[in-house]
Amino acid sequence: MDSSEFRECAKATVDLLINYIDNIRDRNVLPSVEPGYLMKMLPENAPEEPEDWKTLLKDFNEVVMPGMTNWQSPYFHAYFPTGSSYASIIGNLLSDGLGIVGFTWMASPACTELEVVTMNWLGKLLGLPEEFLNCSAGPGGGVIQGSASEATLVALLAAKDKKIRKLKELDPELDECITKTKFVAYTSEQCNSSVEKAGVLGSMKMRLLKSDQNGRLRGETLKQAFEEDEAQGLIPCYVVANLGTTGICSFDPLSELGPICQNKNVWLHVDAAYAGAAFICPEYRYLMKGIEYVDSFDVNAHKWLLVNFDCSAMWVKDGYDLINAFDVQRIYLDDVNATVKIPDYRHWQMPLGRRFRSLKLWSVLKMYGASGLRNFIREQISLAQYFAKLAQSDNRFIVEPEPSMGLVCFRLEKGDKITKQLLKNLTDKKQVFMVACTYRGRYVIRFVVCSQYTTKDDVEISWNVIKNEANQLYQKEINAKPQSISTLEHLETLTICEKSK
Amino acid sequence: MDSSEFRECAKATVDLLINYIDNIRDRNVLPSVEPGYLMKMLPENAPEEPEDWKTLLKDFNEVVMPGMTNWQSPYFHAYFPTGSSYASIIGNLLSDGLGIVGFTWMASPACTELEVVTMNWLGKLLGLPEEFLNCSAGPGGGVIQGSASEATLVALLAAKDKKIRKLKELDPELDECITKTKFVAYTSEQCNSSVEKAGVLGSMKMRLLKSDQNGRLRGETLKQAFEEDEAQGLIPCYVVANLGTTGICSFDPLSELGPICQNKNVWLHVDAAYAGAAFICPEYRYLMKGIEYVDSFDVNAHKWLLVNFDCSAMWVKDGYDLINAFDVQRIYLDDVNATVKIPDYRHWQMPLGRRFRSLKLWSVLKMYGASGLRNFIREQISLAQYFAKLAQSDNRFIVEPEPSMGLVCFRLEKGDKITKQLLKNLTDKKQVFMVACTYRGRYVIRFVVCSQYTTKDDVEISWNVIKNEANQLYQKEINAKPQSISTLEHLETLTICEKSK
Repeated sequence: MDSSEFRECAKATVDLLINYIDNIRDRNVLPSVEPGYLMKMLPENAPEEPEDWKTLLKDFNEVVMPGMTNWQSPYFHAYFPTGSSYASIIGNLLSDGLGIVGFTWMASPACTELEVVTMNWLGKLLGLPEEFLNCSAGPGGGVIQGSASEATLVALLAAKDKKIRKLKELDPELDECITKTKFVAYTSEQCNSSVEKAGVLGSMKMRLLKSDQNGRLRGETLKQAFEEDEAQGLIPCYVVANLGTTGICSFDPLSELGPICQNKNVWLHVDAAYAGAAFICPEYRYLMKGIEYVDSFDVNAHKWLLVNFDCSAMWVKDGYDLINAFDVQRIYLDDVNATVKIPDYRHWQMPLGRRFRSLKLWSVLKMYGASGLRNFIREQISLAQYFAKLAQSDNRFIVEPEPSMGLVCFRLEKGDKITKQLLKNLTDKKQVFMVACTYRGRYVIRFVVCSQYTTKDDVEISWNVIKNEANQLYQKEINAKPQSISTLEHLETLTICEKSK
Repeated sequence: MDSSEFRECAKATVDLLINYIDNIRDRNVLPSVEPGYLMKMLPENAPEEPEDWKTLLKDFNEVVMPGMTNWQSPYFHAYFPTGSSYASIIGNLLSDGLGIVGFTWMASPACTELEVVTMNWLGKLLGLPEEFLNCSAGPGGGVIQGSASEATLVALLAAKDKKIRKLKELDPELDECITKTKFVAYTSEQCNSSVEKAGVLGSMKMRLLKSDQNGRLRGETLKQAFEEDEAQGLIPCYVVANLGTTGICSFDPLSELGPICQNKNVWLHVDAAYAGAAFICPEYRYLMKGIEYVDSFDVNAHKWLLVNFDCSAMWVKDGYDLINAFDVQRIYLDDVNATVKIPDYRHWQMPLGRRFRSLKLWSVLKMYGASGLRNFIREQISLAQYFAKLAQSDNRFIVEPEPSMGLVCFRLEKGDKITKQLLKNLTDKKQVFMVACTYRGRYVIRFVVCSQYTTKDDVEISWNVIKNEANQLYQKEINAKPQSISTLEHLETLTICEKSK
């Protein structure tokens, strides 16, 4: 493909994508394909001879598109949003065109420095304390990781390394290997699966502690867990607080957890993957009260800040904690800038290689501006509140707990079975996509405003689809004997609050 | 940015990128900026109000471009190549436009299935044994990881998990934590830093074993290391063989290492990050003789196969080894396809989220075709051989060891000091970029054919720059007393063979 073909093909691709977004309401959110559908459509071997770009786009339309779950559809209300915007796509296009790998400052100074600057910008927008920023006097700073999963694991590994170093200062003869087996990590039972996975991957026992009635991990619970473990000769090492849990978007109180961690020299990491984005609006910052106690903080700019996956924004109070844990110095990577101020980001992350990801963050910050991003967050929250109002106006529906950010949880007052059937029927119809979780032992459906394209009209359309399905279920209930729910067993359900009980 | 602005901006961005590539020879490979240059150019805060796309591209040209190390320049001969092609950029543009996260089959069937198909295609092109492919009868299959670093760590964690399970079958009372501290991993001193880092991150002692005179880890050395460790009560668990080491692109003999690993039930992983790409040409497959003993194999399609970073292609003989290690089942991620045939790739990797990366691999495979990719590899190797011939024709230069793939190592016959000075002067001039390594105790400069745009003329240009610099050095030597080399201390040098000696 030469440059003139690339020009033509890129134009056609852009038109295709614009057409996809402009007409996304005409598609079902969920695809109508069976497992293996695509494998059957494609040949068993790569083509021997080159194909032209028209064939690529034709195959894309015929083979790929029918198998898409349309995350950017205004009727996608599952999980949490995944960011995408034209601004971000341009940023990534620039990154791909440059085709560099920025593992050291020298490997592309602009790649490192733009990351420093944009992470300072974003950190300030979020209202993070200055000590998390590279532009402060201290050793803090931000780094773009691939995912919140990665950030949680990076912080866990750094916490482990730091704890061992501290213990060895007290006892230089300490057996590192044996001591590490005594380290314990803590989080709430409401955590994302990736937090639990970080414990598995990082070889640290991860206790999922009971949350309160509102899905929050309380200080008292953490303190008790520390005491129990210490009594058994174990060593508390790492705590993950969740600001915006996956199930019901609850917020652990940092002001309670923080002093307990500080008291025991335990690393406190904040997983604010989704809801952290809201802190760009000052009115939500009360939810991160106690942030000054935190060692590391992560929010996925690729969730609710319009940046395409992957762009997980992580800040640490002390960059040397990462460098100490991840620096496997080889001479060939030696250069003069191995400090936190002009960071060699390969020491701030697990892999060696890294893309020029700050370009897409920069594009979004510039092309939306701080005010544009705040408007976006506020608008999404107001759409969720509008949905809650619609659901509350129908007395068959119970909205509980209180809507949080872009999430509204609801159930049918008739109980779990019919609520589960409602979700199953809706999923089968493929027009709206939601997933469930449990709240206080009850099965609830999660409605999340995900797409940036969602309007008030779209919320009404989603609500009408849901309401009509409920109508039919209630009608059937009146007309017929109870249905089996054996087919429901594969429905997706979010984190169960009772998991650790 | 609405769709019409996006159309305009994308067109301007594509023109900018084409212009960058078309005129890349006019730029120095290395930038002329000081640390902190960009931080000084940008404001301290994100803009409050949105900026238009023209400002973005203007700032990109003025702020970012001057700080680029141009990896796609035909005169970039450092490290190993990083892939980029118009075909790949189109694939990624499609991925960004869809804006999905494919962690389960249901989260986008096309995302999962296209990855299965393209990894089968690529596995076949490479001549991997059928049992590594998803389309075989067994539980093997391919998965796209973010980097070779990640693949090495994923395999290490899977090896650890598998070893514990096997040991627990023999002794159900086994203390897992204590036993894991006895596990040992092995690789050659010639390994990439990321392999050593995998040991640190995965909490497993990683022994860097001595390689032979040709930089290869031999069976006898591995066998002896196993015996030493077992005699001390340690447990060999994981071996990383390097096919194409970072320093001199040497190949560990799998046919020697394989039976030793098999005999002790030790996981054998192959890091073929760069050179693995050459196996698409049957004439190089003799270098992977013994591949049938291997448990996992990784090659970076984003290095030498024209796919943009990140696309690290990893195959395992048994997908359940990954699933067992990485599956932290939560109900909300439950669906009916948790098998290796229709994989839920979240259980094949560390993070939960994942991009639609197979689109760029698919684009490249289709738009180059198998024949196009083979031609590309062969052409790059022939350019390296041409450079070797040029260097050999000058009796001040010694080419040693034998050129391997796209890599030619050379030194000045006058010794390390002047060779080091040569590299320093060339780096200071910024026209060609190379890094060094040591070979048999000698300092050698690595010349790698990296850019897809490199032609025979470009090789001659690079050679002339190098030769002229040598001329000047030799002239100076005649005219003056010896120079201090104190300023040379920050020059980059690749893996030192003698590291573990």
